[in-house]
Amino acid sequence: MLFKKISIIGIGLMGSSVARVIKKNNLCEELLCFDTSLEYMEKAKELGVVDGYNTLKAVTMDADLVILATPVSTYKNIVKEISPFLKEGSVITDVGSVKQAVIKDIMSVIPEGVEFVPGHPIAGSEKSGPEAGFIEMFQNRWFIFTPINKDETNLNKISKIWEAADMKISKMDAAHHDKVMAAVSHLPHLISYALVGAVDDLEGFEEKEIFKYSAGGFRDMTRLAGSDPTMWRDISLNNQEMILELLQRFTETLTALQKNIRYGEGDELFNLFEKTKEIRKGVIEAKQHRL
Amino acid sequence: MLFKKISIIGIGLMGSSVARVIKKNNLCEELLCFDTSLEYMEKAKELGVVDGYNTLKAVTMDADLVILATPVSTYKNIVKEISPFLKEGSVITDVGSVKQAVIKDIMSVIPEGVEFVPGHPIAGSEKSGPEAGFIEMFQNRWFIFTPINKDETNLNKISKIWEAADMKISKMDAAHHDKVMAAVSHLPHLISYALVGAVDDLEGFEEKEIFKYSAGGFRDMTRLAGSDPTMWRDISLNNQEMILELLQRFTETLTALQKNIRYGEGDELFNLFEKTKEIRKGVIEAKQHRL
Repeated sequence: MLFKKISIIGIGLMGSSVARVIKKNNLCEELLCFDTSLEYMEKAKELGVVDGYNTLKAVTMDADLVILATPVSTYKNIVKEISPFLKEGSVITDVGSVKQAVIKDIMSVIPEGVEFVPGHPIAGSEKSGPEAGFIEMFQNRWFIFTPINKDETNLNKISKIWEAADMKISKMDAAHHDKVMAAVSHLPHLISYALVGAVDDLEGFEEKEIFKYSAGGFRDMTRLAGSDPTMWRDISLNNQEMILELLQRFTETLTALQKNIRYGEGDELFNLFEKTKEIRKGVIEAKQHRL
Repeated sequence: MLFKKISIIGIGLMGSSVARVIKKNNLCEELLCFDTSLEYMEKAKELGVVDGYNTLKAVTMDADLVILATPVSTYKNIVKEISPFLKEGSVITDVGSVKQAVIKDIMSVIPEGVEFVPGHPIAGSEKSGPEAGFIEMFQNRWFIFTPINKDETNLNKISKIWEAADMKISKMDAAHHDKVMAAVSHLPHLISYALVGAVDDLEGFEEKEIFKYSAGGFRDMTRLAGSDPTMWRDISLNNQEMILELLQRFTETLTALQKNIRYGEGDELFNLFEKTKEIRKGVIEAKQHRL
């Protein structure tokens, strides 16, 4: 038994997926959850992915591990609210997509004697809600810890949960995490949102034509743009600096491409398109593509 | 038997896929191909997707239907080259992703007594070569004709090929086709290429980190950016005007998004992200998403 009592705050897609991993592998004696949506909590109980639900106070009191799986902007208030009830020696971990802002927020309110172990599973789906959760989402993907403490006793215990989900574990500092994620996750999402937003606004053809002919490439962009709006608002605002830098970079590349098209510079276009083909190969070789 | 002799020019992904459809449904007496790559022609013969291959002259002489499945910039020269051999009453069709430029190119060199029926299957894969072709690629997707002639006798015969591939047929004028495709296909591809190109250039982390953590969203963009460079160079240059207009639109949306992030305008971000979620639903309801 890794932990006696684990409580998950936020039982949507990610919270309920990790709940399934914990349940399936029997990693604690009692698994509880809290969510601001009563419907979500009832659904999670009904699905059997948690043993029960209760108020924020009741589920965190006596918990050995608290897993934050809500949008990152809520972390600070949650930890502030539960800090009077957290017991000495208990641990908080999270699944947030940004790490510097989260560490700053949580460390400013966490009570003494409680440890925070920041983490981020690089896995997801555009679906939401406890019924959308599934264990296979984590399979063969990477989990990143951005450790604060030198003593890795608790980190190693939490690591067992993600290993049980068949994730591969890596560690890096929070600033590096945020930089890498801005490139491989935040920028792609924002560009998808912008593309879908731009195409939606077009006059000159009917909306249903966008859907009918979306197999031409557009549909590939809609998966990311179907992601949870609150989560992505929070990510955008909590990794602002890195994201703005990358958007600037992207705009430069796009402007060059636009110029190549305007002036009919076929060789330049070919060279860019040829280079990106190699990158696709890299993704497939790293076995991170969708099957 | 729809046609006695069909010849496919270009036996890559698309050419070999339509060849498979024709063979499987027994839609002609003889199916030949020509490709500038001897290896491709040999492979296609070996796979049994065509009855044989030969020179461009030999395969088009006496052909009842010639299907162009090469990059669109090659069409004009091909039709010019084969025009002395094409027999009276024969038909040329194509699978090109742009239609106005293609019609202009072909109609300027096509011999009298030969009809051109422009078409475009909205289906594809990022893979290339005759061994990558597959019939299922077309299933449940749309085929668009942009007819030139009022008499649709030949169009209806060609339509049978695509219906045999389980495609749904629609018709529109070439200008409308190019406008819709610029939005649902050309813009998404160019943005993917630009994104992958921009991320590839970044310093501050290792290339392998891009691949490792690509499940964060980046991998979704790499499928399109893995598409054939020659094909996409040609599309970019042959639907230039519409593409430039859409890139401009997209840049405006992206600039607004950038401003929202810089000034912490969370509500605006949420509203954009919420709107795009609905569009994802539309794609799924139209059954055009990848399963």
